[in-house]
Amino acid sequence: MAERINRRIVMAARPEGAPRDGDFRLEETAMPEPGAGELLCRTLYLSLDPYMRGRMSAAKSYAARVELGELMVGGAVSEVLRSRADEFQAGDIVFAYSGWQDYWTAGVQGPRGVQGLRKLDPEIAPISTALGVLGMPGMTAYTGLYNIGQPRAGETLVVAAAAGPVGSLVGQIAKIEGLRVVGVAGSAEKCAYVTGELGFDAGLNHREAGFAEKLAEACPDGIDIYWENVGGAVFEAVLPRLNRFARVPVCGLVAQYNLTEPPPGPNRVPQLMRAVLTDRLLIRGFIVWDFADQEAEFRDTVAGWLRDGRIKYREDVIDGLENAPRAFQGLLEGRNFGKQIIRVAPGPTTQPRV
Amino acid sequence: MAERINRRIVMAARPEGAPRDGDFRLEETAMPEPGAGELLCRTLYLSLDPYMRGRMSAAKSYAARVELGELMVGGAVSEVLRSRADEFQAGDIVFAYSGWQDYWTAGVQGPRGVQGLRKLDPEIAPISTALGVLGMPGMTAYTGLYNIGQPRAGETLVVAAAAGPVGSLVGQIAKIEGLRVVGVAGSAEKCAYVTGELGFDAGLNHREAGFAEKLAEACPDGIDIYWENVGGAVFEAVLPRLNRFARVPVCGLVAQYNLTEPPPGPNRVPQLMRAVLTDRLLIRGFIVWDFADQEAEFRDTVAGWLRDGRIKYREDVIDGLENAPRAFQGLLEGRNFGKQIIRVAPGPTTQPRV
Repeated sequence: MAERINRRIVMAARPEGAPRDGDFRLEETAMPEPGAGELLCRTLYLSLDPYMRGRMSAAKSYAARVELGELMVGGAVSEVLRSRADEFQAGDIVFAYSGWQDYWTAGVQGPRGVQGLRKLDPEIAPISTALGVLGMPGMTAYTGLYNIGQPRAGETLVVAAAAGPVGSLVGQIAKIEGLRVVGVAGSAEKCAYVTGELGFDAGLNHREAGFAEKLAEACPDGIDIYWENVGGAVFEAVLPRLNRFARVPVCGLVAQYNLTEPPPGPNRVPQLMRAVLTDRLLIRGFIVWDFADQEAEFRDTVAGWLRDGRIKYREDVIDGLENAPRAFQGLLEGRNFGKQIIRVAPGPTTQPRV
Repeated sequence: MAERINRRIVMAARPEGAPRDGDFRLEETAMPEPGAGELLCRTLYLSLDPYMRGRMSAAKSYAARVELGELMVGGAVSEVLRSRADEFQAGDIVFAYSGWQDYWTAGVQGPRGVQGLRKLDPEIAPISTALGVLGMPGMTAYTGLYNIGQPRAGETLVVAAAAGPVGSLVGQIAKIEGLRVVGVAGSAEKCAYVTGELGFDAGLNHREAGFAEKLAEACPDGIDIYWENVGGAVFEAVLPRLNRFARVPVCGLVAQYNLTEPPPGPNRVPQLMRAVLTDRLLIRGFIVWDFADQEAEFRDTVAGWLRDGRIKYREDVIDGLENAPRAFQGLLEGRNFGKQIIRVAPGPTTQPRV
């Protein structure tokens, strides 16, 4: 029975620069059996996120790294096939950091537990949103913007990777709060999306010539909040436009995750620090779990906005676990358009129970 | 009568890199006469501070620049020689941003007023402390440390320019708060001072070979607060030692004020931003007036510590207004040892009244 085979994608080699196919390996093992107090689950949707690049590096990062031969980490939405725990039953839909694989077992708690396990309510929103607008990316946007960005009506916010799951929510919340919002993205199509669909005031393609000049034009009153998702050239263009007391939440640096050595000079650190001093900038890095105590507030608020149609989201769904390595490589190059999701198995309604 | 001549030092040229003698010019004018509602004052002590270098540049800074031919700005302690304002009388000692000159007149308020004018109480502390530990440098240390540094007992603080008026108070307050304090300074003598006189746990000479290694040794638990006064090589050595959630109040960058172009590469900005993200660093620039509402609290608290002998300070006094340009050049190179002050005139007790 083919279904009894579990496919798992492990890290075969640490990437040097951009990850390549050979850095991943698809392995087949037997479908695991749940022990007492455990669940057996089938992955439906796997989330691909830029943070995974950091987990593949030997360098210090904000979370534990993946070791050679280990399962690639990742959040996923799964269906419970069999439950030997009182808190769950077959058919339940759950979120967990269960990794890049078809089937998994885990305890509901304790040493055999899986990180982040929680039951989803399909009535609230499509279950895949647990990976995006109502999940980690959404909470990243919400907590980082309110805690560090501190948006005030009338200010100007610039958000990088504006069409992505974090950036698109950052910009939409800022619009709700009454800010002028300028989105920066990597294609004309994405720029059209953030202005046409999401209601941003401007969308700028950072790959186009004259980007810095266009940014200045789009921000006639300067920039009060710059949401940093990418690093590199976008930040260089933003820096001279930052207003006094501007805030820079540093959420990601996807443009530089694949750097293998520092870029050529001159060294711009003195220039950056001078701007920090002269304009009394606040630059603060964070990850979503720094604000873990705000999870319920985030989910209630954003689910409400979703229900009221004040927030939109977009998913980029690719079929097949075997396509995750390629999709991940594309994500780091900005080839996705919307939250990158791998559909690992068809939805639960069409699935026979094991 | 020689006393009726007012000497003033004006900016003769904008410095390219390090200021030189020719960038300043000593002019002689007639001693001014106070109008109705005005004071005539004689400068006793003139403060020299690194921020003045920024005022001499055409580049945007955090305060208005000095124009060619204009009086050099600066805070000073003066004696009131004649008062035509009810609030003051001859013999009063005042602080004001009255600049590099012997005599000055100003209104007590209104368009002819002078910035920062306030009467000093010689009973509280020596009047020159209004330029240092009880003045702008002291308030910079106090407000920046509490508001941005957020010291917690048991943490490790590293302070650059540790023997200077700001750094020495930062470190002493941190000791009062129960932190481990490592001072970085530019000579063995200054290092001996911060450990021997000020009670810091370690003093490191950044000009010595192996500085980065010694810094690591002196901070076995990493660095939780780095007080940035200088920039450049000290910051580069500190960066890899910063702990998760470390705070970096950016108060000054004296090592780079004289830079005329960005230093050679590689470009370290991506490395810096990566550390910001990975370790969730907070980097925040400020100037003392961002916390202007805390002035009374600062002065009460630090005056109390002074009275109780919990805080020490050191002044580097040079005689003669004509020596201010040279002293200022030395200050930017770290040749001073303690708060740099120019004694413009002997103290009031030996002065005949005009």
